[in-house]
Amino acid sequence: MDVLETVRWREGTVRILDQTLLPGREVYRELAAVDEVVDAIRTLAVRGAPAIGVAGALGVALAARTLTGEKVCDHATFLRHLRIEVDRITAARPTAVNLGWACGRVMKRLEDLESSGPFAGAGPAAAGVEALREEALAEAQRILEEDLELSAAMARHGAALLPEEGRVISHCNTGGLATAGGGTALSAVFEATRQGKRIFVHVDETRPLLQGARLTSWELRRAGIPYAVHCDGAAAWLMKTRTIAAVLVGADRIAANGDTANKVGTLSLALAAREYGVPFYVVAPFSSFDLSLPSGCEIPIEERSEEEIRRWGGVAVTPDDAPAWNPAFDVTDARLISAWVTERGVGRPPFSDARMR
Amino acid sequence: MDVLETVRWREGTVRILDQTLLPGREVYRELAAVDEVVDAIRTLAVRGAPAIGVAGALGVALAARTLTGEKVCDHATFLRHLRIEVDRITAARPTAVNLGWACGRVMKRLEDLESSGPFAGAGPAAAGVEALREEALAEAQRILEEDLELSAAMARHGAALLPEEGRVISHCNTGGLATAGGGTALSAVFEATRQGKRIFVHVDETRPLLQGARLTSWELRRAGIPYAVHCDGAAAWLMKTRTIAAVLVGADRIAANGDTANKVGTLSLALAAREYGVPFYVVAPFSSFDLSLPSGCEIPIEERSEEEIRRWGGVAVTPDDAPAWNPAFDVTDARLISAWVTERGVGRPPFSDARMR
Repeated sequence: MDVLETVRWREGTVRILDQTLLPGREVYRELAAVDEVVDAIRTLAVRGAPAIGVAGALGVALAARTLTGEKVCDHATFLRHLRIEVDRITAARPTAVNLGWACGRVMKRLEDLESSGPFAGAGPAAAGVEALREEALAEAQRILEEDLELSAAMARHGAALLPEEGRVISHCNTGGLATAGGGTALSAVFEATRQGKRIFVHVDETRPLLQGARLTSWELRRAGIPYAVHCDGAAAWLMKTRTIAAVLVGADRIAANGDTANKVGTLSLALAAREYGVPFYVVAPFSSFDLSLPSGCEIPIEERSEEEIRRWGGVAVTPDDAPAWNPAFDVTDARLISAWVTERGVGRPPFSDARMR
Repeated sequence: MDVLETVRWREGTVRILDQTLLPGREVYRELAAVDEVVDAIRTLAVRGAPAIGVAGALGVALAARTLTGEKVCDHATFLRHLRIEVDRITAARPTAVNLGWACGRVMKRLEDLESSGPFAGAGPAAAGVEALREEALAEAQRILEEDLELSAAMARHGAALLPEEGRVISHCNTGGLATAGGGTALSAVFEATRQGKRIFVHVDETRPLLQGARLTSWELRRAGIPYAVHCDGAAAWLMKTRTIAAVLVGADRIAANGDTANKVGTLSLALAAREYGVPFYVVAPFSSFDLSLPSGCEIPIEERSEEEIRRWGGVAVTPDDAPAWNPAFDVTDARLISAWVTERGVGRPPFSDARMR
């Protein structure tokens, strides 16, 4: 199976597979301006914590190319304006740490070069800015390449936790679409299947935006892996009445104590998993850890538009003026998590970030 | 606020408020044939355990009127054919006990009259059949009237459990639409509000058919009670992050040990309620108890069409051929339930049906 090209650099643009149109249509969009990148991230045309990290990093490279005129009169001015663009991209979605992490990494690379590297001090401004632009793209491309390698490593570590034959529950979308193309939690299923294990995936549809029903089912169908979609409310009943080998979820941000922010509904799944003795695994790159936050209480939780709950496919499902509450994420306590799987291996509780380094 | 006319007898027909068209349109349909009643129950045009009980009973009265010719040549033949119609209506939905209970009650009334009452033995067949028809309707009307009284009694007992001011979580629809017009769990909120208590209702949207988003919000808006709709997966996060006074749910069937079948997603709510110390109340008429079943394991769980998960409002949300699993109900263990509220009062655990009689 080919790796998905969720997000790539293509001839001076950020090319994304528009996830809002899946599973109906497979449409790629070439984003030529920072505003378009911000909009694509905000509207979930590109989504999934690692994927928006890569899209954000490429967005910074795009910003570096599109800054012109007075804004590039010298290195310092260029970097100051680029920082504004970085902040704009990072603000597109608040919960996933990867977006700020990836954009910040590109920015830091340029700042380091500017202060201590070959561009330090005076020099021909235009040539220096062009070199910084190239370096922004090179760093973003490294993040993308590394993301594919991280997925492969998470896939190996995650697959080792799965039985020769069994059923798992998947929440939201944690496949290739959530990353540069490999996947986080779902990559473990892809790898286990490649190894000859027989895994059946029970797919949480994942309201309100149905990433499970729309995207995970599309990926599993593409990979020829057996699955069935169910409503989120049915997952506890599923764990009570069938033998489930594992719940596999991703993460948008993990605090220093292991508390894990992920797509809303994850906490509910974790409570049911504990009740029915089902291992609950979080699979995410190590960059999802935000060790600056002592616990999940400090993780900002994005609240999205009420309209996502009020209508589907243009059809109203509530009275037009019905108030709605739409948190996009929730935080699962570390004590409910059986293990955190990163590219570095499997960390079991009690959680210690030292053991994950 | 007027009592909803969810289901009524009207000039030889069963008149229902078509719940599949709410909240967009308030359309009443007059069902003139048993097939139409069965179809309305199966498609959830009329839904809610008590409401389908009343609709079923009126359906039996309708069947009694529409049997003709050879099928009414004598009392015994008439009753035998009527029994076939009763079985057909009862089979429309398997989980709620109320449907079989209400249809069976009308049938038993006629059988009792036929064997020991004024119609016992020989007599003019036509006159006797007509009298039985009238009695079928009279018994169904009694069930309807009693349902309204049961709602009022459940409302009083339930309201007494609610604080002067607080937030509750509602699942599926348990208001007037779920009964002949009063309500089960939501009737407690209506009554508490009437008493001057300030109750805010957090409405589980209740996938797949969105009875919370569509119907509960419509009823709360009509009653002027403040509310907000959320996705089912957000309920655990709601209980973790806000002070919730109670979770209020209905029931489709309650086994002799207190295990309670209700709309899928109820079990998940109960697990979260226990985790976060939120009282979990089941509000249902005593007729919801099926004392012939020792535990919830014996309750039949209806599985509905995969299409309910695959599309919404005509829009596909999964690949067209995506397999889906769609249990309409789940069973919550008695140990997770804080109290059962019926028209007879409040029963606390450990569950004993003797104390509820």
